[in-house]
Amino acid sequence: GMAPAVHAQAAVRWRLASSFPKPLDTIYGAAEVFANAVKAMSGGKFEISVHAGGELMPPFGVVDGVQQGSVEMCHTVPYYFYGKNPAFAIGAAIPFGMNARQMNAWMMHGNGRKLMNEFYGNYGMLSYAGGNTGTQMGGWFRKEVKTVADLKGLKMRLGGGLVGEVMAKMGVVPQSIPGGEIYQALEKGTIDAAEWVGPYDDQKLGFAKVAPHYYYPGWWEGGPEVDFFINRKAFDALSPENKAIVEAATTVAAVDMLAKYDARNPEALKQLIGAKVKLLPFSKEILDASFKAAQQVYEENDAKSPEWKKIFADFRAFQRNQVAWFRVAEGRFDSYMQSIKL
Amino acid sequence: GMAPAVHAQAAVRWRLASSFPKPLDTIYGAAEVFANAVKAMSGGKFEISVHAGGELMPPFGVVDGVQQGSVEMCHTVPYYFYGKNPAFAIGAAIPFGMNARQMNAWMMHGNGRKLMNEFYGNYGMLSYAGGNTGTQMGGWFRKEVKTVADLKGLKMRLGGGLVGEVMAKMGVVPQSIPGGEIYQALEKGTIDAAEWVGPYDDQKLGFAKVAPHYYYPGWWEGGPEVDFFINRKAFDALSPENKAIVEAATTVAAVDMLAKYDARNPEALKQLIGAKVKLLPFSKEILDASFKAAQQVYEENDAKSPEWKKIFADFRAFQRNQVAWFRVAEGRFDSYMQSIKL
Repeated sequence: GMAPAVHAQAAVRWRLASSFPKPLDTIYGAAEVFANAVKAMSGGKFEISVHAGGELMPPFGVVDGVQQGSVEMCHTVPYYFYGKNPAFAIGAAIPFGMNARQMNAWMMHGNGRKLMNEFYGNYGMLSYAGGNTGTQMGGWFRKEVKTVADLKGLKMRLGGGLVGEVMAKMGVVPQSIPGGEIYQALEKGTIDAAEWVGPYDDQKLGFAKVAPHYYYPGWWEGGPEVDFFINRKAFDALSPENKAIVEAATTVAAVDMLAKYDARNPEALKQLIGAKVKLLPFSKEILDASFKAAQQVYEENDAKSPEWKKIFADFRAFQRNQVAWFRVAEGRFDSYMQSIKL
Repeated sequence: GMAPAVHAQAAVRWRLASSFPKPLDTIYGAAEVFANAVKAMSGGKFEISVHAGGELMPPFGVVDGVQQGSVEMCHTVPYYFYGKNPAFAIGAAIPFGMNARQMNAWMMHGNGRKLMNEFYGNYGMLSYAGGNTGTQMGGWFRKEVKTVADLKGLKMRLGGGLVGEVMAKMGVVPQSIPGGEIYQALEKGTIDAAEWVGPYDDQKLGFAKVAPHYYYPGWWEGGPEVDFFINRKAFDALSPENKAIVEAATTVAAVDMLAKYDARNPEALKQLIGAKVKLLPFSKEILDASFKAAQQVYEENDAKSPEWKKIFADFRAFQRNQVAWFRVAEGRFDSYMQSIKL
């Protein structure tokens, strides 16, 4: 066949600010997987340097950085920016939200990506999925918590998003502490509990020694999506092939992160159980009270933020259908597999 | 910065043979998603024409086609080639195997892709994931089946892989019938039951009218992987950037297919239930007997095929860890969500 006209692609150099520290290797590493894929696909003509949290700007300053154009893109969890507008949380995870697969379905073939990008447009950004951890664990507790009464006054380190407001309604006193300082706070008893991610990441921080009651599930993070946010002007300036390359590379990174967590968590969990960790489910009483408290927070957000209200209505309607379907083939298959000895 | 040396990428034209007919639009369409991504990322310099099942070669002749180099690649379900060697089935789905996420984890960060590609090397091919349907349904039955005794002599249309052998051990008489002829066979009573895919695809074939008992789960397809097989010589002849583009585009297609099924199945299921379909779970008796029969088939395959034996041992060890982990955070989150009114 005829060779198409030769045209040289201009060299493109971008910077990506991550919200994550390098030791959180699975999450942080997804940005490197992304950048490597872009470089390989473009034959080295499009290079993106990846900068760990704090290197170019504070970890939670990355959205401002992208909006202002000081970096072309970032890798972060949208719920960190809940304070700007609660609608950010829906793009990552809300308590009793969707699992990883359901979230993908909403984003890709429901209205999810479209609605979120309309909203992110207010910040001069567009988003692509950049990973998922799967359902996280509910965290490490110095003492057992069986009832809602056990939560009253409990000082608990929590991550981003709505969970702090939901927990506060149940009497928990949310604490904001960087990952590196959690161990010491638990050891000293400055805090009573802390949630981080899941077995693979948690094991490295050694919480088992100081707070051996390891609860599940992290009902506030059933399938948290990590995102790439890209400055729209920078994106629009790309050639059509580089746009397609960026989009595909985000997918490569997103799939890779979840597969990596799924492959790594089981072994870490086994080792934790071997180290005498007490693996405990949250009681139905606690889950039910948490779910009820979450509905109140949703309603408060409906009143506070029209963006939340619009996006949440679509999210919840989609979720209802998803859960009804996952109850059937997928749910029954999984529950049967979990009931037998392989 | 300095622009890298300009070099013209030669135009590349490939042909892809699909095993699927166009009306199976979600599965068939994934090959088009793939080809469109390759074209966009390469700026039109790499074009892949997609040919529906039967257009260039018979739907189940595509592995021979790739091996012989009459096409550069195909899009198919590896278990169709179970007759060549049972190890093919492990690359797609085996009864009581892994779900879609677990399969991805094994392929990408366990030994899955490495072991399967060693095996596929015997056919001059390499593989990439090219989609997943999620857990399929167990099929349509003219009459209720409650016990293993109810399965004796039952003529059931089944797809590929090991399920026929497992079902035969329970007295079922497996039938091989193309999709387009199932409806009539059920209507006439030539067969008693038929499995196809899930609500979205099944609804279009109208089985509800002639076999209204719709069972779940399809325990033989907990997370069937659809694959792209590529002729190794053709792949090796690609430039490094085109190799990277092909790899990323397979991921885009794979993620898109599962998200599309997850988005489409719930609405179809609702409509089926509205049309008086009787949605029924397989009884524990039937599941337990099927699981036992599957173990026998696994053992027979261990004796027959050293390739099966090697790959299955790794698959099963990985699966044990996966299921133990999914029982915790992910499983408890899903089961709680399925227990409440959203």
